[in-house]
Amino acid sequence: MVPHAWYNALPELGLTLPPDIGGQSRLARAKGMQVPASLLRQEMSTRRWIPIPEPVREHYLGWRPTPLRRASAFERSIGTNSRIYYKYEGGNLSGSHKLNTALAQAYYYKKAGARCLTVGTGAGQWGTAVAAACSVFGLECRVYMVRSSAEAKPYRPALMRMLGAEVISSPSPRTEAGRRAVAEGDDQGGSLAIALAEAVEDTTEPHTHFCAGSAETYSLLHQTVIGLEAIEQLKAAGEHADVVVASLGAGSNLGGLVLPFLSDLVEGGRPRCVSVESTACPKLTRGRYAYDYVDASGSIMQKMFTLGSTFVPPDMHAGGLRYHGTAKLVSALYDQGLLEARAYGQRSVFSSAAEFARCEGVLPAPESAHAVHAAALEARRADDEGREDCVVLGLSGHGLLDLAAYDSFSSGAMLDAVADDAAIARALDRLPSRPDARRAVTVD
Amino acid sequence: MVPHAWYNALPELGLTLPPDIGGQSRLARAKGMQVPASLLRQEMSTRRWIPIPEPVREHYLGWRPTPLRRASAFERSIGTNSRIYYKYEGGNLSGSHKLNTALAQAYYYKKAGARCLTVGTGAGQWGTAVAAACSVFGLECRVYMVRSSAEAKPYRPALMRMLGAEVISSPSPRTEAGRRAVAEGDDQGGSLAIALAEAVEDTTEPHTHFCAGSAETYSLLHQTVIGLEAIEQLKAAGEHADVVVASLGAGSNLGGLVLPFLSDLVEGGRPRCVSVESTACPKLTRGRYAYDYVDASGSIMQKMFTLGSTFVPPDMHAGGLRYHGTAKLVSALYDQGLLEARAYGQRSVFSSAAEFARCEGVLPAPESAHAVHAAALEARRADDEGREDCVVLGLSGHGLLDLAAYDSFSSGAMLDAVADDAAIARALDRLPSRPDARRAVTVD
Repeated sequence: MVPHAWYNALPELGLTLPPDIGGQSRLARAKGMQVPASLLRQEMSTRRWIPIPEPVREHYLGWRPTPLRRASAFERSIGTNSRIYYKYEGGNLSGSHKLNTALAQAYYYKKAGARCLTVGTGAGQWGTAVAAACSVFGLECRVYMVRSSAEAKPYRPALMRMLGAEVISSPSPRTEAGRRAVAEGDDQGGSLAIALAEAVEDTTEPHTHFCAGSAETYSLLHQTVIGLEAIEQLKAAGEHADVVVASLGAGSNLGGLVLPFLSDLVEGGRPRCVSVESTACPKLTRGRYAYDYVDASGSIMQKMFTLGSTFVPPDMHAGGLRYHGTAKLVSALYDQGLLEARAYGQRSVFSSAAEFARCEGVLPAPESAHAVHAAALEARRADDEGREDCVVLGLSGHGLLDLAAYDSFSSGAMLDAVADDAAIARALDRLPSRPDARRAVTVD
Repeated sequence: MVPHAWYNALPELGLTLPPDIGGQSRLARAKGMQVPASLLRQEMSTRRWIPIPEPVREHYLGWRPTPLRRASAFERSIGTNSRIYYKYEGGNLSGSHKLNTALAQAYYYKKAGARCLTVGTGAGQWGTAVAAACSVFGLECRVYMVRSSAEAKPYRPALMRMLGAEVISSPSPRTEAGRRAVAEGDDQGGSLAIALAEAVEDTTEPHTHFCAGSAETYSLLHQTVIGLEAIEQLKAAGEHADVVVASLGAGSNLGGLVLPFLSDLVEGGRPRCVSVESTACPKLTRGRYAYDYVDASGSIMQKMFTLGSTFVPPDMHAGGLRYHGTAKLVSALYDQGLLEARAYGQRSVFSSAAEFARCEGVLPAPESAHAVHAAALEARRADDEGREDCVVLGLSGHGLLDLAAYDSFSSGAMLDAVADDAAIARALDRLPSRPDARRAVTVD
């Protein structure tokens, strides 16, 4: 039941993604990142199926197939006649879907001769997943974690340390980037941009590589195990999905669930696919499809739906939804009309998620909570329109290490975080113009 | 596969438990506790099977049967030829086995007319379980949580509040017991004894009852779903348990797993059953089988293995193993030679548990970690003696809300907590003597 191959959606969808444009620090990237050729080949493959290496699949079997459960109690509680299923990815030790690709990446890096992976992490899910994957494949792991996040969520670094990783609060005195950040400003709380820069810099030892994260096209590929399993599980339950709903951070969770549902693997017609973002960071619903920097370092540009790399979302609990942009593959799906998009405020999101937790006994991560809320609204909309839909939602991770966020909701202190019109306009104004005029090189 | 009845071991084992002896506050108990007759009848039943009420079983189906998994990667890691299986009870929202009885108790209290349950909790597992059960059956819930514990583990009260419970840090100004504790001493950190006293006192509103906890004989009965499922699952796997291992707090986890294995439901002979406690609170291995108070209030005495109700264990991370005594049913098993006992220090325990987590992807609660360690030792002992045993361990809960304890281990700061000889001797000296001479009433 665990797939033997990942699903590469590009050939079937007939999509060719706009090429990346490398910026001034391309050299630094080439030195520090050194993505294994095996991973880059996957991005460019025209094959529909990419075999999952046996050692990776063997570890998948430790927690996969993940359950697809019907949320019957939640259905009753919200009073819908529609059926809501959730695909639960929080049952592994790292607590989220990110382990699906972290494990694959660690495998390929190890095979390419790596001994140590460095990684930058904000809320901590990605760092935890890479720490777990490195533990599995006997790699060292150094995680640069945004200091304010590490202090607000002390259990995250504790879990990474238990997995054998070294966790460094960023900005740190270890790297030039960290020292500069400390010297330059009072922002000792750090940012993901600084943490990433530190992790990239800390690769001078031999066989030490920076592990890029979860927005790459190959990450989306590895995540397709989610959707592939869900399709098979729905079939076994005699169901056909009418709507598939997932939250959008950079795109690996959404892509992993949705891409297989857009293929001919689904009999009886494609479901509607819905992306859910936060009103605090509404890149699909209020952003622009344009070339923009993938991070604050100004190194690489991709064509994507973006609010601008200088956009800073207001405070919000779903740290994983704060990314200003969108994976280029997900951006292309939205551009092609294969995806709908919604944005919701966190108070209504947590209200639905708390109700879901009480009914179903599973506490959604703040990110996944957005999909829970959207699924509830889709189910009710079907009721209003006289249908009984089958709604499938991606529950990408558990929220047990995010209980402070739930407490803020329970106590009534939570505010709805909504991106400021002027802030969006300002950041969009600063989008790089005429990218082809830059000293740029097309890399794929 | 989820049992339709709980297993009452007393008739088959031919055990009659020594009667309780009520102390001076029996009246207070009778007023405040008002345990429903349905629960008390279960304790005195001579029937082998007690049917699980349909509404309780329906909720069990939300997360039961719980998985019995083989820990193959852990076996390889510790290099044993024996087989280790773990029965995992951490998959429900409350995170431990305690929900099995909390749900049953909430059901019977509700049926007896209760509208609100009050509860005292130390580490928080019992409070979380009752909060979850009250949420299911539409009861209000007020949890008095030891202040130092609530501050050290803020996610525990957050989870209870998310479940709709009111959480009060104890000692509190709400009750006479709390005010007295504040006035009398500097111990604002509180204790389980004070929290329990506050919860008992806070039952003056109509239909408000104190929910006694997890050491009662009826709690052990409700927990037998664990062992009953495990026996069936082992059979399906073609296995026969040679050793069954569980950690001992008060006894509900241990009893729930072990009792069915002592019955004729197991073909091919009884396995050895092993209780695992902490060297910080070694009631079976270093205590006495005697009448002692069940809590610090001096209200009720039971015949049990105890270190004395005045014994205070040294600081340790497995808060659930700090209870000075032992459920009377478990005490009787040990007295009859049906149970072996081991005590281990927390450093070796966490070392095994961290290894287990890295191998199996499941993080044991500090309490359950003791059983993991003992199971590893049993497996290796079998190797040494030329056998390949089947070892079954009870993994009673997850440790995701206890990551500070793991961090203390990872950083090397953890000390082994061992009970002081003199402290044990002093507390045993203070055991009540000649209980029959007291103004006592036998209650069952």
